[in-house]
Amino acid sequence: MKKSEKRTKYRLFVGPPSDVTDIQYLTGFAATDPVVLLVSHGGKRLVVPDLEYGRARMIGGGVEAVLASALPKVSPDARGVAAWVLGLMRREGVKAVTVSRWFPASLARRLEAAGIRVAVEENTLTPERAVKRPEEMEHLRSAQRVAIRCMKQAIGKIAAAEIGADGTLRQGRRRLCSEDVREEIERVALAAGCLCAETIVAGGAQAVNPHERGHGPLRAGEAIVLDIFPRDRRTGYWGDLTRTVARGRVAEPLRRMYAAVAKAQRAALAVLRAGVSAETPDRAARRVFEEWGYRTERSAGKMEGFIHGTGHGLGLDIHESPALRPGGGRLRAGHVVTVEPGLYYPGIGGIRIEDVVAITKDGHDPFPTLPRTLELDGP
Amino acid sequence: MKKSEKRTKYRLFVGPPSDVTDIQYLTGFAATDPVVLLVSHGGKRLVVPDLEYGRARMIGGGVEAVLASALPKVSPDARGVAAWVLGLMRREGVKAVTVSRWFPASLARRLEAAGIRVAVEENTLTPERAVKRPEEMEHLRSAQRVAIRCMKQAIGKIAAAEIGADGTLRQGRRRLCSEDVREEIERVALAAGCLCAETIVAGGAQAVNPHERGHGPLRAGEAIVLDIFPRDRRTGYWGDLTRTVARGRVAEPLRRMYAAVAKAQRAALAVLRAGVSAETPDRAARRVFEEWGYRTERSAGKMEGFIHGTGHGLGLDIHESPALRPGGGRLRAGHVVTVEPGLYYPGIGGIRIEDVVAITKDGHDPFPTLPRTLELDGP
Repeated sequence: MKKSEKRTKYRLFVGPPSDVTDIQYLTGFAATDPVVLLVSHGGKRLVVPDLEYGRARMIGGGVEAVLASALPKVSPDARGVAAWVLGLMRREGVKAVTVSRWFPASLARRLEAAGIRVAVEENTLTPERAVKRPEEMEHLRSAQRVAIRCMKQAIGKIAAAEIGADGTLRQGRRRLCSEDVREEIERVALAAGCLCAETIVAGGAQAVNPHERGHGPLRAGEAIVLDIFPRDRRTGYWGDLTRTVARGRVAEPLRRMYAAVAKAQRAALAVLRAGVSAETPDRAARRVFEEWGYRTERSAGKMEGFIHGTGHGLGLDIHESPALRPGGGRLRAGHVVTVEPGLYYPGIGGIRIEDVVAITKDGHDPFPTLPRTLELDGP
Repeated sequence: MKKSEKRTKYRLFVGPPSDVTDIQYLTGFAATDPVVLLVSHGGKRLVVPDLEYGRARMIGGGVEAVLASALPKVSPDARGVAAWVLGLMRREGVKAVTVSRWFPASLARRLEAAGIRVAVEENTLTPERAVKRPEEMEHLRSAQRVAIRCMKQAIGKIAAAEIGADGTLRQGRRRLCSEDVREEIERVALAAGCLCAETIVAGGAQAVNPHERGHGPLRAGEAIVLDIFPRDRRTGYWGDLTRTVARGRVAEPLRRMYAAVAKAQRAALAVLRAGVSAETPDRAARRVFEEWGYRTERSAGKMEGFIHGTGHGLGLDIHESPALRPGGGRLRAGHVVTVEPGLYYPGIGGIRIEDVVAITKDGHDPFPTLPRTLELDGP
């Protein structure tokens, strides 16, 4: 990992809080248009345009709302957030800032041209985010409960399907498609105040690509990956849950793969606790796959096996610190992570099982969960 | 506007196609995790991780999918997309690239440290996006039709409400809240294959802040701003539609404000055509407000009047080129823009009316639309 530059007294954030979630984390202010946030020991200054000022003034909590149009004009050719950033630096007398690695290159250059030093933090600008506060923990549990409600609905729909003569799943006279199950999941999420943007319902050969969302008719005997990640619209926090199911019996290779993934997940969960390296659960999962003979390698130009990470932190971002992989640092009490090993082999299918847990001093607190069952009997 | 640096032969894009929509525009590849795209006259190279490679190979259309793990390792301390970018530069022998102003500062510095010149384009890296292709035009119209369907549903719900003794709107025994109307809008959008993330249903004093989403009971005689912007999940294109309605009669100041906004919209629409400055419709709208005596100014520390732009381009981003304001360049046939003047005064309320049109040689083609009516009679 690249060594970061020395941190300065000021942290500077620019962008829409909905994307640059550090801003939402540090201020509680949610918006989809760009704002500017300057954080120091002296407090937090949030620069917003006229049309957001009314809302921003109501934040409280040590955040001063600054009206963009009231800032000093520094450069005649700077517009929008560039002008705001330069005006704020002038107003606050700032000579050096630290920014995240995603900070826009154009703004970094403008700041430097104005004589302000820009240090880029290569890791995270808000390390405090990884350890969740009690209310964040509750927001995350609440989002996970919605994921479970969606999953039950989806599994119920697949379990209730009849099997047509051609092997496709049937719901009355219609074929049951990935799209139908996804719509059901999203309907349940919406009614519970959450948005599910990229829900995965992928069966058979489609599930071999872990990020294929899935489309078309589902079939009996194939593994169907259901990956559901609702975001609570009120709080901004995510849930994340994956189950793999099949309607009816599956062939032996798939059953054995499922058992291996379930065992890898248990192995990864078993080693979680504050103080261990974030790589430890990843190694535990990979060891199970090795013991069972599941190799991760390139075949016909495409990687197969366990081709993604073992897990990731969960919060206002769907992927945040810590990552369960080499270089992910040490786990701490209060981290919230997914544990989601998977196996993907063309010709057999894809299996992934994912749950969320909170790291504790001695192990982990499980989040709300539901049973893991591959084969679903009929109606 | 800042003069951009000289463009190089190569354009480089890094990020999730869902955010860095230039990548989706140029390749048709949709994903929510970061990828790298290098574009030159020689073609397009799209670098993806193992788990996306299967999907990326199926793109076609002159896009070469490059497996990230197969790229040369250039720097031992570079990880993730930083390593991919450096590996791709080495593989392709690239010595200079042009990036957008949102390009991450950390990557720009790494490239420069590796001896590669980085030119930042201060305007847009994909000017070709503003003029829509026929199939894009159809995607945009289709999303706008969904917005209209949602709007009809929302207006129907408000029109059908009874008025309680306390002035709140009633649906049977319950009070009708912003949340109820929003849920209805989002349900209709979802069933039509669209997502509505930040729908605005804001009445009375809430509507004075243009980006307040709205909450709690709606009331008779107050102006309720309905701003609906669905994104088609299949195509990624947006619709955008705003109406302002009131249940029952409104007081004279609100009725006059509504007439002024409607007139400002007509005035802005009337001057649209290929060849005029993007500032022209903005000036036309502002002139109407001046003539009617509606001033835009600071009052009690808060801006009031016409406090946002007259419109923006619409495409894979909800806000894209051209912006209808000073510095927005010249309008061209095939541009698709919103036209959405509004007035906001504490103590009176907020009014906004928004439609989408396509610029033509002689004027504009209206998109699907629906009538503009402020006062809604009861059931």
